[in-house]
Amino acid sequence: MGSIVAKNRKHLVLATGRSHPELASSVAAEMGADLMDVDIRTFANGEIYARFQGSVRGADVFILQSYCRPVNEWLMEQLIMVDALKRASAKRITVVMPYYPYSRQDKKGRGREPISARLIADLFKTAGADRIMSIDIHASQIQGFFDGPFDHLFAMPVLLEHFRHTVDPETLTVVSPDMGRVRVADVWSDKLGAPLAIIHKRRDPLVPNQVSVHEIVGKVRGRTCLLVDDMIDTGRTIVKAAEALKANGATNVIVAATHAIFSDPAGEILNSDVIDKVVVTDTLPLRDDQRFEKLEVLSIAPLLARAITEVFEDGSVTSLFDGAA
Amino acid sequence: MGSIVAKNRKHLVLATGRSHPELASSVAAEMGADLMDVDIRTFANGEIYARFQGSVRGADVFILQSYCRPVNEWLMEQLIMVDALKRASAKRITVVMPYYPYSRQDKKGRGREPISARLIADLFKTAGADRIMSIDIHASQIQGFFDGPFDHLFAMPVLLEHFRHTVDPETLTVVSPDMGRVRVADVWSDKLGAPLAIIHKRRDPLVPNQVSVHEIVGKVRGRTCLLVDDMIDTGRTIVKAAEALKANGATNVIVAATHAIFSDPAGEILNSDVIDKVVVTDTLPLRDDQRFEKLEVLSIAPLLARAITEVFEDGSVTSLFDGAA
Amino acid sequence: MGSIVAKNRKHLVLATGRSHPELASSVAAEMGADLMDVDIRTFANGEIYARFQGSVRGADVFILQSYCRPVNEWLMEQLIMVDALKRASAKRITVVMPYYPYSRQDKKGRGREPISARLIADLFKTAGADRIMSIDIHASQIQGFFDGPFDHLFAMPVLLEHFRHTVDPETLTVVSPDMGRVRVADVWSDKLGAPLAIIHKRRDPLVPNQVSVHEIVGKVRGRTCLLVDDMIDTGRTIVKAAEALKANGATNVIVAATHAIFSDPAGEILNSDVIDKVVVTDTLPLRDDQRFEKLEVLSIAPLLARAITEVFEDGSVTSLFDGAA
Amino acid sequence: MGSIVAKNRKHLVLATGRSHPELASSVAAEMGADLMDVDIRTFANGEIYARFQGSVRGADVFILQSYCRPVNEWLMEQLIMVDALKRASAKRITVVMPYYPYSRQDKKGRGREPISARLIADLFKTAGADRIMSIDIHASQIQGFFDGPFDHLFAMPVLLEHFRHTVDPETLTVVSPDMGRVRVADVWSDKLGAPLAIIHKRRDPLVPNQVSVHEIVGKVRGRTCLLVDDMIDTGRTIVKAAEALKANGATNVIVAATHAIFSDPAGEILNSDVIDKVVVTDTLPLRDDQRFEKLEVLSIAPLLARAITEVFEDGSVTSLFDGAA
Amino acid sequence: MGSIVAKNRKHLVLATGRSHPELASSVAAEMGADLMDVDIRTFANGEIYARFQGSVRGADVFILQSYCRPVNEWLMEQLIMVDALKRASAKRITVVMPYYPYSRQDKKGRGREPISARLIADLFKTAGADRIMSIDIHASQIQGFFDGPFDHLFAMPVLLEHFRHTVDPETLTVVSPDMGRVRVADVWSDKLGAPLAIIHKRRDPLVPNQVSVHEIVGKVRGRTCLLVDDMIDTGRTIVKAAEALKANGATNVIVAATHAIFSDPAGEILNSDVIDKVVVTDTLPLRDDQRFEKLEVLSIAPLLARAITEVFEDGSVTSLFDGAA
Amino acid sequence: MGSIVAKNRKHLVLATGRSHPELASSVAAEMGADLMDVDIRTFANGEIYARFQGSVRGADVFILQSYCRPVNEWLMEQLIMVDALKRASAKRITVVMPYYPYSRQDKKGRGREPISARLIADLFKTAGADRIMSIDIHASQIQGFFDGPFDHLFAMPVLLEHFRHTVDPETLTVVSPDMGRVRVADVWSDKLGAPLAIIHKRRDPLVPNQVSVHEIVGKVRGRTCLLVDDMIDTGRTIVKAAEALKANGATNVIVAATHAIFSDPAGEILNSDVIDKVVVTDTLPLRDDQRFEKLEVLSIAPLLARAITEVFEDGSVTSLFDGAA
Repeated sequence: MGSIVAKNRKHLVLATGRSHPELASSVAAEMGADLMDVDIRTFANGEIYARFQGSVRGADVFILQSYCRPVNEWLMEQLIMVDALKRASAKRITVVMPYYPYSRQDKKGRGREPISARLIADLFKTAGADRIMSIDIHASQIQGFFDGPFDHLFAMPVLLEHFRHTVDPETLTVVSPDMGRVRVADVWSDKLGAPLAIIHKRRDPLVPNQVSVHEIVGKVRGRTCLLVDDMIDTGRTIVKAAEALKANGATNVIVAATHAIFSDPAGEILNSDVIDKVVVTDTLPLRDDQRFEKLEVLSIAPLLARAITEVFEDGSVTSLFDGAA
Repeated sequence: MGSIVAKNRKHLVLATGRSHPELASSVAAEMGADLMDVDIRTFANGEIYARFQGSVRGADVFILQSYCRPVNEWLMEQLIMVDALKRASAKRITVVMPYYPYSRQDKKGRGREPISARLIADLFKTAGADRIMSIDIHASQIQGFFDGPFDHLFAMPVLLEHFRHTVDPETLTVVSPDMGRVRVADVWSDKLGAPLAIIHKRRDPLVPNQVSVHEIVGKVRGRTCLLVDDMIDTGRTIVKAAEALKANGATNVIVAATHAIFSDPAGEILNSDVIDKVVVTDTLPLRDDQRFEKLEVLSIAPLLARAITEVFEDGSVTSLFDGAA
Repeated sequence: MGSIVAKNRKHLVLATGRSHPELASSVAAEMGADLMDVDIRTFANGEIYARFQGSVRGADVFILQSYCRPVNEWLMEQLIMVDALKRASAKRITVVMPYYPYSRQDKKGRGREPISARLIADLFKTAGADRIMSIDIHASQIQGFFDGPFDHLFAMPVLLEHFRHTVDPETLTVVSPDMGRVRVADVWSDKLGAPLAIIHKRRDPLVPNQVSVHEIVGKVRGRTCLLVDDMIDTGRTIVKAAEALKANGATNVIVAATHAIFSDPAGEILNSDVIDKVVVTDTLPLRDDQRFEKLEVLSIAPLLARAITEVFEDGSVTSLFDGAA
Repeated sequence: MGSIVAKNRKHLVLATGRSHPELASSVAAEMGADLMDVDIRTFANGEIYARFQGSVRGADVFILQSYCRPVNEWLMEQLIMVDALKRASAKRITVVMPYYPYSRQDKKGRGREPISARLIADLFKTAGADRIMSIDIHASQIQGFFDGPFDHLFAMPVLLEHFRHTVDPETLTVVSPDMGRVRVADVWSDKLGAPLAIIHKRRDPLVPNQVSVHEIVGKVRGRTCLLVDDMIDTGRTIVKAAEALKANGATNVIVAATHAIFSDPAGEILNSDVIDKVVVTDTLPLRDDQRFEKLEVLSIAPLLARAITEVFEDGSVTSLFDGAA
Repeated sequence: MGSIVAKNRKHLVLATGRSHPELASSVAAEMGADLMDVDIRTFANGEIYARFQGSVRGADVFILQSYCRPVNEWLMEQLIMVDALKRASAKRITVVMPYYPYSRQDKKGRGREPISARLIADLFKTAGADRIMSIDIHASQIQGFFDGPFDHLFAMPVLLEHFRHTVDPETLTVVSPDMGRVRVADVWSDKLGAPLAIIHKRRDPLVPNQVSVHEIVGKVRGRTCLLVDDMIDTGRTIVKAAEALKANGATNVIVAATHAIFSDPAGEILNSDVIDKVVVTDTLPLRDDQRFEKLEVLSIAPLLARAITEVFEDGSVTSLFDGAA
Repeated sequence: MGSIVAKNRKHLVLATGRSHPELASSVAAEMGADLMDVDIRTFANGEIYARFQGSVRGADVFILQSYCRPVNEWLMEQLIMVDALKRASAKRITVVMPYYPYSRQDKKGRGREPISARLIADLFKTAGADRIMSIDIHASQIQGFFDGPFDHLFAMPVLLEHFRHTVDPETLTVVSPDMGRVRVADVWSDKLGAPLAIIHKRRDPLVPNQVSVHEIVGKVRGRTCLLVDDMIDTGRTIVKAAEALKANGATNVIVAATHAIFSDPAGEILNSDVIDKVVVTDTLPLRDDQRFEKLEVLSIAPLLARAITEVFEDGSVTSLFDGAA
């Protein structure tokens, strides 16, 4: 008879939804860990079912899901996975979403609109998520939408590393495709030691998607222009920007972005003559028809693997989470 | 100078998601009300946006959404609509889901499974829903998953009314396709004054979808058999039941169900020789290829219209909400 | 000067309310653990007071309470114990309720009724319970009433083990006393390799407690009938079923149930000629006048002890928690 | 077709649990209102069931329950009633508890104790209560235990009114039976224009219920002593105080208290020669054997009726709720 | 005897903290309403006390507080006022904060930083606020920090109206003082039909408050430059910008901003030769030493009065709340 | 490849706000720990910013703040620190407030007042605090305002230890300055073996701060009087009490209190001839002008250091937390 005492060891469980298994595998490989088997199915009527195949009791669980199309399927899938973990006594549940869904719906532009990015944070909290990890969220304020720790990672070091070896700073100009993204472009120009140019698009408020003018501020003639953005969706905006740059005498136009959303027909649109190269990371999966010759995809897995390990081990590499802008 | 006082009138707003506009229109027509315009769009990357086009401040709002395929799209759509209403100061938000999604995931059969039906209730609560209205939920306990009023309606009176005019109770036998649904069949047999039969399917626990035996308990030979269930999904189960009934001498087999999920290829499967008629309600929308000659669809709109009106007016027609079983 | 670091050991505390101390002692003995002393008193005006006599800071605490009569006293007692633990910095509080109280009030049958089983789950959550452990809850959906881990144990293996040694499968028929319990009976018939029979009780909806007819489906003549149910309350239902079986030629009638509620005068009622044996577990305490010669009580303590140990050690014996039905 | 608008009238529903129906009837009579029928039953195993018999949709509901013995039964009963109201769409639910249960467990005296008075407030909040109304709570801080409006009423005016007609202030001394109640006695002495005396009981901390000394501070010899307290439980304390007063020359000893808990054998104990009169209110029900000749019970119903009416009509008679101390 | 029914009228209560009583008086005057008396005091030890002097039961209450220095005093004061209202049964509590405090702490720039703007929203929610009303918040995403309706008003129409009468669009250039504010300046340039210029400040990341370069993009020579921003704090940034404009040949420099924080010594700094006029609103109070000859203060009271009236009456003038950017 | 497991060590982090750094340093020194650096600043407009300079991931963090003037600044500072810790993944956050702010606003004396002491508890809960540690709170019920563990420490042993060496029990009388504090004085009299006296102040309810009479109950003539209280604010009350004692023949008057709030001009007031000595602890900081010759300040740091260590190590020295009263 007596008291029952046990050592308190913590163990890590890594699992993934079905949106981007390649990325999850790469992260697992980087960490030297196995992905836990999860039985995930979609029933005939479209409902999703998920069951973890190994023990998660007391575990520190990280579930990855990338928010490519169909976004809403993947959302319900990850929410259901979180619910299953909560009910199975996981000790801590971290939702890893390399690309934060609905991040562009982060405020009310007009009355009676939703703030879907906040809704997403609340849904995961309700399902049982303890923390969120994401990369290059569209607006930094989204961190504040979640009532708990939010690890915000930055892909810039990964992309910078690439360009330091592939472009000549002497002939380079960093270009912001938009007034709203100038701050990020500013940091790029700083880090690469290259001047900055800005494209000023004035939109007609009555015809929301029609950009009227592209003014270029800064020197682009005879330069290699590096257009930087956080995401590329259909690619139309970026191609218009590239056209303006070429029309103004740019020699080369290289596009760099973290999130390759590539909504159809981005593959086609981006494969344009005005663009010489597109460099993205693999936060989102790409089908074959979304890839093209000028595209280069850098792996984000090492960054995620390091961040997950740090969080699990209560490390303090805050440099990893510190913002670039 | 002085105090500012105003009359406190309440007004009803009726709106719908994009899953089943016909039903919403019918409900509005029954009520003599207009559906409020809502600007709902799906962006290129699959994210949904919704904005209410008229004032909802202080309103008693009912939003309809039917949970046919793609279920998860419609879920996020209705959640986003609720979020927009909450932020626009709607006074009360009632989520009307004629068919409650994920209602078959209402318990953990094994460890590390989700209880998605509870999750659904929590997600709507979080988004801002004050109450839920639904019809013939798969398990009555689901009412208890929502922390607030849950109006549970019953389609049986609508269906019974139909059969009272179309079948002869003298030659009729009510049949439960499953041990789990006997209670409901029992009420049918009571209300129609017809005897009850039961089909006992024994499932092999290791091969979950393979039904091994169909035993029939009760007299079906020479009878018109009315197979009653709450929902028909792919139709495979019900056709197997009908086959068993015909094999045991049933003259006619009529199928009655509230929810016509009709997951593919239900249209084809149900259009079988062993079934003589299928009667359902329009809680879920049906595409043309899901319809067939023997199918009869009864309108659930009058029931919903009455229930919404009662709730708005704080009426006390509890008969409407009282269970059959 | 410097940083203060300590090993993180976890220790288990086992305590009990006053409803069923024998069961708690047996569980403790099975685990080789001591029950923590708790000073529990009822004051003159009926209010209950509880104080833990040993340290619970940082402990993984399991409190047992069985929900026999007076149910509401035991509820407040366990809630008060949970409150004391929460305020005393227990790390995790598991409410162990071998029989889940108010489990038959799990849905609204009519308007303006409570869903008391959900209320119970919420009350414990509010008081500070992190998890619930229970055995053979009346409806599996009740797991979904609690917003957190719910360990649902099954007594069937304990009962089956007993019958494998005491009855001859050749002459045995498993009988469901009710349409609503057929699924469980089905599993019994499967596990024991014995045929199934069903008693069909039709209730008059206007006279709720008066059962009009007992139809028997399946072969019982000349058989040993094993009537299986989750609980026996006053015993009236089960005796009526036994009478019907005997009237239809059953040789022996054995009754098996997990929860022996035995509300008065169950001891008398069950001691009927039509019943040959009653086998239950000790999830609930029995007074002497609730016992009778034909009664056999199996111990549930080993199952609870194993489950508590598994939960404490983050084990993965999900078989323990996997459902039978 | 068009918009649906309705007048927004509010209606009051008054209902009661089973602990003190007489008080509820009196309150209803004072208000000129009917008590709503509620079907409340205790099942054989001790579980309680409650169903409201009339419509409560959109109503402003007040449920009365007095917390006499068995306190815990009445607690669960009122919690269940609140749950039923919440699920039936009552607009606002006010829990009226003339005597707040567990009010003496309002702090932790030692480690590992509960704070049950806070727990009670949380349980009602969880069940769905919007507000609490109570009379002369043991410690005013208990108001702060509830996260919402708490209407705290004072019985003193009712009692004072009585004594203004029955005692002669010239010969009267107000006596506090305890150091902890001096502030209230001070107000009495002020309002009646009579001097104050105090009984100083020193308790032995190791023998909690044994009072060692009774020192009297102030003049009592030859005086009519009015012993005032918020509640009388077993009466032992008050009789000891009366004995001390008589031993010190008091001519008469009158006891006044709001809450007549009268735990057994209070009826017997209080019927002592040292006490000349006991005046209480009917916040709690009294059985015949709890009554005795010297007892006078004043009705609290007019106060409750006025308070409920004020709250319903959003009146501003704050004097009703303002404290005496 | 019978049912008790009452008309449901709603009444508005307007009250203010002590930070900016002039603005509150102006708003009340615009509305033709009285400000409710509130007894607010600061005790000797610095704690604040507040009590509403008139009835607030069932009222729709709006409390104004402007967040000038000492910000934290005013925060606790408004939180305490909200707590008092919640406990006094106010029906709806709207926190009106013309300037949202801590709005610049809206994200984590580095690890282990707070997101104080989110914290503020949560504190008011906890205290009992139902909704927030604010003007020109620093980042629109802050709306999403509050879990409920957030009325975001825009001062631009007030400011624009002024400039339409005081400047000649022919000689005017709208200037953004910062890359981050270009979008707003863009709308100004649009509305006033004047060209846009931008000042590009590059900050040294290691010396946070030292701006290294001021590049001007766009034509400013010989122009009247209208520098637009949401707030002016110490004024240092805006004076540096004005200096750069004058150095680049600007004829006149006019500064327009909504929020005149004017932290010391802003009065002195802004009274510079390089600035010809400063136009702000009175969302924040100004002491005499914060005013100077070139300063013009426009009243925001009419906007607030209209918005409060609209919210009270459930109006739908969404134009009022629609963003400019 | 394989599973990732790590030892689970816990580490303690101690940090402080800016209100009382000396106390924090003393506590750290007692514990042999370092205080973590926190970058705390007040911006020009009065907003506070805080950033932890070392890792807090997974740490058991204790933040000290003493609630001297300006109370509200220190409140927001500590709330912001808690928010930063929550978002930085601290494992457990304990708010150490040696003096609980707003503790005298612990109930509603009249309608439409706040209960600010409850509000404080809720604000910290919302910000992310897991537990509170405080010393000699004004009313023990405040423990129940926090929904979680509240470690209530007692300074009495520290003070008693001092007096056991400095006063002669033979000539000592313990005096309660107020009816409301008699219970505490009673314990002092018990522990020191000295008689008790009480000062009865009758206040005029219409002129709240004017004390009309000071009656002394008990023997003080020719005695050394020890006036005991939990806090001294402006000192006016205690000096009035001392005057009354001296006027009644007391030889010496010594004042003992835990919390030296010393609101201006307490330093001056207390330095009165009627007081011979004032003994307090350093729960609150004292400026030089708040100190005077007769003042003696005892260190509370050893008590706090022990308590923090116990909590960190899950010790069970409940004596430390057990109440004196």
